[in-house]
Amino acid sequence: MRDQKLATDRRTLLTRVAAGAAFLAPGAALAQSGDLERIRAAVAAGHDAAIERLQDWIRNATIAAERRNVEGGADHMMRLAREAGFQKVEKVPTAGVPGVFATLDAGAKRTLGLYFMYDVKQFDPAEWSNPPLEGRLVDKPGTGRVMVGRGAVNQKGPQSAFLAALHAFRAAGRKLPVNLVLVAEGEEEIGSPHFAEIVRQQRVLAALRKCEGVIMPSAGQGPNGNAGISLGAKGVIELELVASGQRWGRGPARDVHSSLKAQVDSPVWHLVQALNTLVEADGNTPAIEGWFERVRPLTARERALVAESARGRREEDSKRSLGVQRWINDVPWLESLERLVSQPTANIEGLVAGYTGPGGKTILPGRAVAKMDFRLVPDMTAADSLAKLKAHLANKGFGDVEVNMTGGYDPTETAEDARVVRAQQAVFTRAGIPWALFPRNAGSWPGYVFTGAPLRLPAAHFGFGTGAGAHAPDEYFVIESSNPRVAGFDGATTAYVDFLYEMAAIK
Amino acid sequence: MRDQKLATDRRTLLTRVAAGAAFLAPGAALAQSGDLERIRAAVAAGHDAAIERLQDWIRNATIAAERRNVEGGADHMMRLAREAGFQKVEKVPTAGVPGVFATLDAGAKRTLGLYFMYDVKQFDPAEWSNPPLEGRLVDKPGTGRVMVGRGAVNQKGPQSAFLAALHAFRAAGRKLPVNLVLVAEGEEEIGSPHFAEIVRQQRVLAALRKCEGVIMPSAGQGPNGNAGISLGAKGVIELELVASGQRWGRGPARDVHSSLKAQVDSPVWHLVQALNTLVEADGNTPAIEGWFERVRPLTARERALVAESARGRREEDSKRSLGVQRWINDVPWLESLERLVSQPTANIEGLVAGYTGPGGKTILPGRAVAKMDFRLVPDMTAADSLAKLKAHLANKGFGDVEVNMTGGYDPTETAEDARVVRAQQAVFTRAGIPWALFPRNAGSWPGYVFTGAPLRLPAAHFGFGTGAGAHAPDEYFVIESSNPRVAGFDGATTAYVDFLYEMAAIK
Repeated sequence: MRDQKLATDRRTLLTRVAAGAAFLAPGAALAQSGDLERIRAAVAAGHDAAIERLQDWIRNATIAAERRNVEGGADHMMRLAREAGFQKVEKVPTAGVPGVFATLDAGAKRTLGLYFMYDVKQFDPAEWSNPPLEGRLVDKPGTGRVMVGRGAVNQKGPQSAFLAALHAFRAAGRKLPVNLVLVAEGEEEIGSPHFAEIVRQQRVLAALRKCEGVIMPSAGQGPNGNAGISLGAKGVIELELVASGQRWGRGPARDVHSSLKAQVDSPVWHLVQALNTLVEADGNTPAIEGWFERVRPLTARERALVAESARGRREEDSKRSLGVQRWINDVPWLESLERLVSQPTANIEGLVAGYTGPGGKTILPGRAVAKMDFRLVPDMTAADSLAKLKAHLANKGFGDVEVNMTGGYDPTETAEDARVVRAQQAVFTRAGIPWALFPRNAGSWPGYVFTGAPLRLPAAHFGFGTGAGAHAPDEYFVIESSNPRVAGFDGATTAYVDFLYEMAAIK
Repeated sequence: MRDQKLATDRRTLLTRVAAGAAFLAPGAALAQSGDLERIRAAVAAGHDAAIERLQDWIRNATIAAERRNVEGGADHMMRLAREAGFQKVEKVPTAGVPGVFATLDAGAKRTLGLYFMYDVKQFDPAEWSNPPLEGRLVDKPGTGRVMVGRGAVNQKGPQSAFLAALHAFRAAGRKLPVNLVLVAEGEEEIGSPHFAEIVRQQRVLAALRKCEGVIMPSAGQGPNGNAGISLGAKGVIELELVASGQRWGRGPARDVHSSLKAQVDSPVWHLVQALNTLVEADGNTPAIEGWFERVRPLTARERALVAESARGRREEDSKRSLGVQRWINDVPWLESLERLVSQPTANIEGLVAGYTGPGGKTILPGRAVAKMDFRLVPDMTAADSLAKLKAHLANKGFGDVEVNMTGGYDPTETAEDARVVRAQQAVFTRAGIPWALFPRNAGSWPGYVFTGAPLRLPAAHFGFGTGAGAHAPDEYFVIESSNPRVAGFDGATTAYVDFLYEMAAIK
């Protein structure tokens, strides 16, 4: 669900590090361990194998929306975990795509949780300039050597860099400074409908309760090298609204000739009218009864973080990259960024009814579908929002419109002083990478499973490196960076080594 | 555009003929000509060749919406005309699919105009139980031997029966009793965008001005054998409404991540809101400003014809065949039939925006399309209706929504006392086929090109025989009927022979 590129775009430039600090200078914790040179050599020696491992993974694409490679993807994830040194690895069956639960006991004092996704977004090969499932290495002028493929940045590239760090520890004959607990799912791109079920199994909960926090590997640097540290993400519910003659009891049960519109009601007009009740006249503000009841306003600290980030970004660059001329409701730049962090949304992802080919076809369709997502901010919850949507439709006379929720979850938040946040800051700072805190991603990830009850663990993304094109054609992850301020694959791997030492050492 | 099945369904049963009249008894005019036996024998002898000709035509499908077989379809139509005896045959180029203009001078006193379409509706072979372009002969229990294929009933089967009649005259060594002027188009199924241009060429107009009226061959019998004679049809405009960030100047120029909904306007919501202004709260009545200004109420005669037809039909049969439980706005049966004849419509044929595949995809689409048709009743016109729609959208704040009209035309009407109407009645009556007048088809055909200025000719459909599935899978035309009250292919052919004699003789 989350889009790495977007998160990166608005992570910026609070230059809290000494200007000119050498990129990937030896970290304090890493230096203390005395193993720096040996592990660096192992990262370099393992480069080709790690790249092949990533290519293999890209070839092995799981797409939950299409039920593509459901068991094969889970098996592949299990093999990757075993090869990286996890001692216990098990498949966790669900009613949908299975999860994977794995533990690596290094005999360390502290334990770190890991969240992986092994599924990827749908793709249309016709839109790609390179095959989406080959993981080709391509020279991208101004960027470097990149791996192109579905899942390259979202999330197999960063996850592979993390796994490569574990391989490097083993190759260097060094024990991990922390124990690891991995939970992986194959339904992230459809809203993680079974992820809570995976995590809430007693043995998984028990393992996670020992963790300092949870990290999802991610490409945390923007194209200029600056990094963002996000303290949370919006929740989401994703669903289809379906109007049909069959369920409505009005209009035709199937497509009929369009001339019958004079005699017969239309499920398509019914859907249009139902949709029209969901937003205000501005076409933006959700108009669902009670939708804003639980919306918590931004704190002064959150507003300050947004304002700082706005100062580091150029409005015109953002407009150009999105192809946007005006922000929503004509609000100014800073307010548009505050909205991005603070406002719940009602979005139509797609409309499908009747004839969708070239030209027209004179039919009166018996069924119409709107694919929607609603982003949720604290303290909204997925369950309450779904109930409010259903009640609203019923109250407005659209109780017959089916609401088929396919996935979603609550918002997630992590405190600024959590170890997994402070450890990131230390690693970025040591590497001379400017970083900024950002209060909340506008996109979503199922961090609530960790940050919410019963675990209440800190959970965040972390990683060096960059990429783009998540959910879009020509997705890529940078393997060798032509910008010295941006890490390539080995730099990202080494950063995870430093991060693991930092997590072991941090107060 | 028109749907033969629908038209047939509501043609009914005013039994104005002597009960027990033998089916296809010798017609008065035909009998007088003294050529009955000879031509009947020629029809029978030519059967196999005529069926092969129809199969060849079905294989040669032209689909204007897909720009499929544009020149090949016109060339085939020309060859069919030449082989049937037309002496002058020419292709009439247009900006779209070409028309065909042909004349057959028999040295007769009177001239009959013919309107043919050589294009067919789109199809999806996966939905068919027989290949849509083979013209297979299949036994259909309770119906007889039928030819299955796209265009079988709409309109290649009936048109082939007419051409077979011309072949039979030649084979029997008999001159045609009337001269013929043929105008054919290949864009009927997309709303005949260039047909007026074809007809209004001076040499075509000059030829048509000599005609008593115009006939389009059609399968005029219902499954029970009863026939309908329609005195007109609604007009139509067919168009796409397109909302896009690019044109609107708001929202994204292309699809972006759905989390941006908090910051960016949505062209899809813009389209939903524009659509919502087009109908009243009932989801049915057009709410476009001035839409009803020119709507002419039904006359007492028209209401009487509708009431007669309602008496001959079972409401429950109609509901079951359409999969409908209630008529529009809960009106009773008779009122629903009056609406079908008298009310203009605003119909959504299809909706297409963003992601349309399985499940969801978290995007905010940059573009959304509604495919629509609006049926028009006298005295509405296509041009005035299009202008009103555009003005309405502009007045409501949706002036940026593109209105791309793909086809359409004015309503058409023909007087009850026109020779082409009375000749039909005579031929049906002689054959012992119960027939009924119906004031207006709810579907559309471009008869206005003949019935409107400058020609003002009577124009109607005519033909024996039956079929079903126009615009739907498994379309068929009955070749050998198992119901003695329904004509097969040869019966339909012989009826055209009788009709041509009748047109020559009728007062």
